[in-house]
Amino acid sequence: MAGRKVLIIYAHQEPRSLNGSLKNLAVEELSKQGCNVTISDLYAMQFEPRATRNDIIGSLHNSEHFDYGVESWEAYKRRCLASDLIEEQRKVQEAELVIFQFPLYWFSMPAIMKGWMDRVLVQGFAHNFPQCYDDGLLKNKLALLSFTTGGDEEMFSKGGVSGDIRYLLWPMQHGIMHFCGFKVLAPQICFAPEYVSEEKRKEMLTSWAQRLKTIWEEKPINCTPEWYFK
Amino acid sequence: MAGRKVLIIYAHQEPRSLNGSLKNLAVEELSKQGCNVTISDLYAMQFEPRATRNDIIGSLHNSEHFDYGVESWEAYKRRCLASDLIEEQRKVQEAELVIFQFPLYWFSMPAIMKGWMDRVLVQGFAHNFPQCYDDGLLKNKLALLSFTTGGDEEMFSKGGVSGDIRYLLWPMQHGIMHFCGFKVLAPQICFAPEYVSEEKRKEMLTSWAQRLKTIWEEKPINCTPEWYFK
Repeated sequence: MAGRKVLIIYAHQEPRSLNGSLKNLAVEELSKQGCNVTISDLYAMQFEPRATRNDIIGSLHNSEHFDYGVESWEAYKRRCLASDLIEEQRKVQEAELVIFQFPLYWFSMPAIMKGWMDRVLVQGFAHNFPQCYDDGLLKNKLALLSFTTGGDEEMFSKGGVSGDIRYLLWPMQHGIMHFCGFKVLAPQICFAPEYVSEEKRKEMLTSWAQRLKTIWEEKPINCTPEWYFK
Repeated sequence: MAGRKVLIIYAHQEPRSLNGSLKNLAVEELSKQGCNVTISDLYAMQFEPRATRNDIIGSLHNSEHFDYGVESWEAYKRRCLASDLIEEQRKVQEAELVIFQFPLYWFSMPAIMKGWMDRVLVQGFAHNFPQCYDDGLLKNKLALLSFTTGGDEEMFSKGGVSGDIRYLLWPMQHGIMHFCGFKVLAPQICFAPEYVSEEKRKEMLTSWAQRLKTIWEEKPINCTPEWYFK
């Protein structure tokens, strides 16, 4: 939709990977629609994942006892957060849709992307108790996880060794995205691209491109325990 | 138990935090038993969480297309992994029990600890398909998550806004620890230490010390979906 702003948080080391292609395709398709697409290419940016004292410019709120949650909240209010965080927060603030594109590492996102969550989504900016979940500060935005897996669909089924794929979505979709108020769109999952044919990988790209054509008409999922564990 | 080896992977920026005290207490109590305790203090070590090409010394297996999983596996076999990873793998190899001590960040571990999982538990060392889950390569070891939360116990109950705390344990305990073969001991959880009395915090420390006295007699949990989602 013309004029809409999209942010893609992208975490893959290799531009020629399927993740890289999925990211490029999203840029292409959304730009064709007239959307304004911004990318945070975390590895290329050498994004810092560690939540440390370096994220607070100048003196601390409590120099006796370092508490990252408290210090980043105070620094957000005093506008003393590190510049890379302020820049990422600006991108999120402007976006109507945030897409997270990554390979699943250990039933979750790679550490470099987890660090983006830990450092960017600070109190005051993304939530501010009791402003969380449906009242989270990013509540007028959409978010979507788009990822590739190592295991195949059968492994990630209810009776499979790795359990229903929805089980592992809970901490990311409910604990992070929903907590901050995001309306969560259904995840885009490419199962085991390393073990399928070139043709099947092309289908994965095509179906993502196809979905993006009508992405703005999608209804968010109902982010309740039932969606995940029923 | 005299002579037993324990590894504590510890992720907190502040030595005077409750996490710091829980870690110190474990060292004290286990040493008193005659155990040999090693600590990886991730922030103090400035542990690198990002999985990059820097983890492979020398030339790549496939320099055309960088795949971290493949490259780290090949580098493990050729003994070409970065020295910090080899050192962490040595510590894991020696340990009979690994304790992960951290504050819960976003329904999961802090990025610095996620990076330890991403980079240390490589194929060939921790698993080697089909050697995973009950046949994972670390199958004769015990592991335990010990963490603090921001939300209180009511929030993390079945009807609470954040859902049963067990829901978020799945990716960590099943997807990482069990996948690598670890026998998983019940987690040690300190709910919302920031919002309780000094006395209650002392009780949290005491109950951890108490538990550690008989830790070697504990039976692992039954790491099936039922344990998490029933």
